[in-house]
Amino acid sequence: MKFHFFDNASTTPCCEEALGKFRQFAVEDFGNPSSSHALGQRAARAIQEARNFFAVTFQVGPEQVVFTGSGTESDNLAIQGIALARLSQPGRVLASATDHPAVRKTVLALAELGFDCQLIPVDRQGQIDHGKYLELLTPATQLVSIQQVNNITGAIHPVEELARVAKQRVPGLVFHTDSVQAFGKILHPIGGTSVDLVSISAHKVRGPKGVGALIILDRKLLADGLRPLIWGGEQEGGLRSGTQNAGLIAGFHAAAALTLSRREQSRAHAERLLARLRGELEARELAPRAIAWNSLNAVPQIASFSVPALPGSGGPLSRLLEERGFLVSTGSACSSTKPEPDPVLKAMGLPHAACTSALRISFSELTTEDEVTALAAALEESIRRMALLTGKRI
Amino acid sequence: MKFHFFDNASTTPCCEEALGKFRQFAVEDFGNPSSSHALGQRAARAIQEARNFFAVTFQVGPEQVVFTGSGTESDNLAIQGIALARLSQPGRVLASATDHPAVRKTVLALAELGFDCQLIPVDRQGQIDHGKYLELLTPATQLVSIQQVNNITGAIHPVEELARVAKQRVPGLVFHTDSVQAFGKILHPIGGTSVDLVSISAHKVRGPKGVGALIILDRKLLADGLRPLIWGGEQEGGLRSGTQNAGLIAGFHAAAALTLSRREQSRAHAERLLARLRGELEARELAPRAIAWNSLNAVPQIASFSVPALPGSGGPLSRLLEERGFLVSTGSACSSTKPEPDPVLKAMGLPHAACTSALRISFSELTTEDEVTALAAALEESIRRMALLTGKRI
Repeated sequence: MKFHFFDNASTTPCCEEALGKFRQFAVEDFGNPSSSHALGQRAARAIQEARNFFAVTFQVGPEQVVFTGSGTESDNLAIQGIALARLSQPGRVLASATDHPAVRKTVLALAELGFDCQLIPVDRQGQIDHGKYLELLTPATQLVSIQQVNNITGAIHPVEELARVAKQRVPGLVFHTDSVQAFGKILHPIGGTSVDLVSISAHKVRGPKGVGALIILDRKLLADGLRPLIWGGEQEGGLRSGTQNAGLIAGFHAAAALTLSRREQSRAHAERLLARLRGELEARELAPRAIAWNSLNAVPQIASFSVPALPGSGGPLSRLLEERGFLVSTGSACSSTKPEPDPVLKAMGLPHAACTSALRISFSELTTEDEVTALAAALEESIRRMALLTGKRI
Repeated sequence: MKFHFFDNASTTPCCEEALGKFRQFAVEDFGNPSSSHALGQRAARAIQEARNFFAVTFQVGPEQVVFTGSGTESDNLAIQGIALARLSQPGRVLASATDHPAVRKTVLALAELGFDCQLIPVDRQGQIDHGKYLELLTPATQLVSIQQVNNITGAIHPVEELARVAKQRVPGLVFHTDSVQAFGKILHPIGGTSVDLVSISAHKVRGPKGVGALIILDRKLLADGLRPLIWGGEQEGGLRSGTQNAGLIAGFHAAAALTLSRREQSRAHAERLLARLRGELEARELAPRAIAWNSLNAVPQIASFSVPALPGSGGPLSRLLEERGFLVSTGSACSSTKPEPDPVLKAMGLPHAACTSALRISFSELTTEDEVTALAAALEESIRRMALLTGKRI
């Protein structure tokens, strides 16, 4: 069965350019980049080119780009790296209540090491509650981590403004943002802004799985502010040891270059897709009767909504859609094997019925308008079938 | 220029089977293994199959196999995982003085967190000094990490015996071994032995770079003895978060299955290659006059030697060999961009001239006897040329 893939916020198919790079550095120029011989140095050069690309992209020096094994590792290097360097005087660490588990759970795990870990509440639209944010920013605050785009709702956080506000209150704190969902969709923070650390990942932008990067926007953190997570051969400026992966890194470079060069047209394309989806659902009289959209200020690539008239229908609806050839998500892929309501929607204060009936539809540049029309038809069919099966009215 | 690759202890070319798996899970079954839909579940099944393979291989349960992003990360998860779970009562942590930096530097970095970190001295053959080992095993010892095969000399450590001795002295300690160089060359520790944790890596056995595993031989450590290094979506039983990499993991599975099935014949092949190398060097009157072999009890895939008559010749000799089409190493690839004498050879007490004139030649199953003969000829030429250039007699 050929599927229509509407789960691009979870992962994307690798582009051919990235696949070609993987092959090249797996079987041709397969040397260890730390080796001084030709096969090692060819791999090292590809890594250097990738590093320069990301340095230019983020307007920093090449030494401020640290390649990691994933976006999650990049978040962990930022958060644990800052915290463990301050282990002798643990203070307060903040994350947004709707951050990805790679941030949220990493921050909460610091409590065991003596840190005061707090989650920043959000409003019904998933936006940071400013009053509570200001209250939480005590002088003891060492680190704030707020995602740029939420992975479930697509909600956009104004991280540069949030960082500026935080530093006005507590000049010495470090501000990290998880830009894994934002990168390639909206403009990312660059050097010279109030944001200090940015995490990105390849497989969300049609690069290979298994590679991410931490961009150290604030050069001062290079000196001694960040403790490595993984020790060893001192690759990546000593901040991430382990054989450097020329294939995955060059693949990330290729995919990111393509994605960034097409960002504006991808956004316009996604806006057309989203308008088509909303239009089709309205035409089918499903919206606004059955559908409640989860966020206003969101990227157009992520369409998140609930069917509150059918509590608990997230899982069953996604399976009915799959039978019809459409793959969607019921929440973050990273926790979707667990049945409980998604913590992001819970943190937004959505009622239980909305949480348990949530679906996430996410587009890529490969998604077509015809596919969206077909999805809307399948969604109508599935919702009506679910209503029939459960005896609910919609 | 087509190179003869004699640097297989540093990395190996990816086998076609592994490359095929990477392609499959990059563009066909590319879903996120945490997604409940078909494309996610196909990837999840491949990971489960790989996990079962390694579980059978190490005679443990599948939940005792944790896939990581590299061998280095696997070493770090073992060492930091054990240490950080005991941060409130930091004790002694031991590693061998010749361990890979992924172990040695990770252990030494624990000193900052309050641990008493000590390196176990080795003798001239790179073997653990038993008297000193016993002295170092105080009741405060929480963790011992000793590699199974040294990456520079190929020296084999009897880790099961070393673990047994350690636990006789200090029953509660945890014993970890870095089997990255040993895996596929000699038998690895299995469940039920005194070894508790084993680290392995794919790219040393013709798998892809970017994936390793920690095998938790002692099931008791699963419960609460090991603190995760990377937090987030709780993949890999909560011990290693981040999108699971079906392509790399299935590639590791494919490469490891091939390598293990051919272990005996690969060893016999390497023994023939080593005998040919020694024979050729003797026939050319280079051994024993110019060549000093670094280890007696070593795997045949790694031939490590010095040319002590030509101090400082490691780098220049490797470049002369490269000009002739032969790629060798002057020490661990992971630190070979630095000019100082290799710490492994220094720890073995080799004189400075031997340290700085060391070469490592490492074979794979792809290496042919004709290539070894050609290498010996190139080595003779290069040594004689170096002697001429420096005015030294050999």
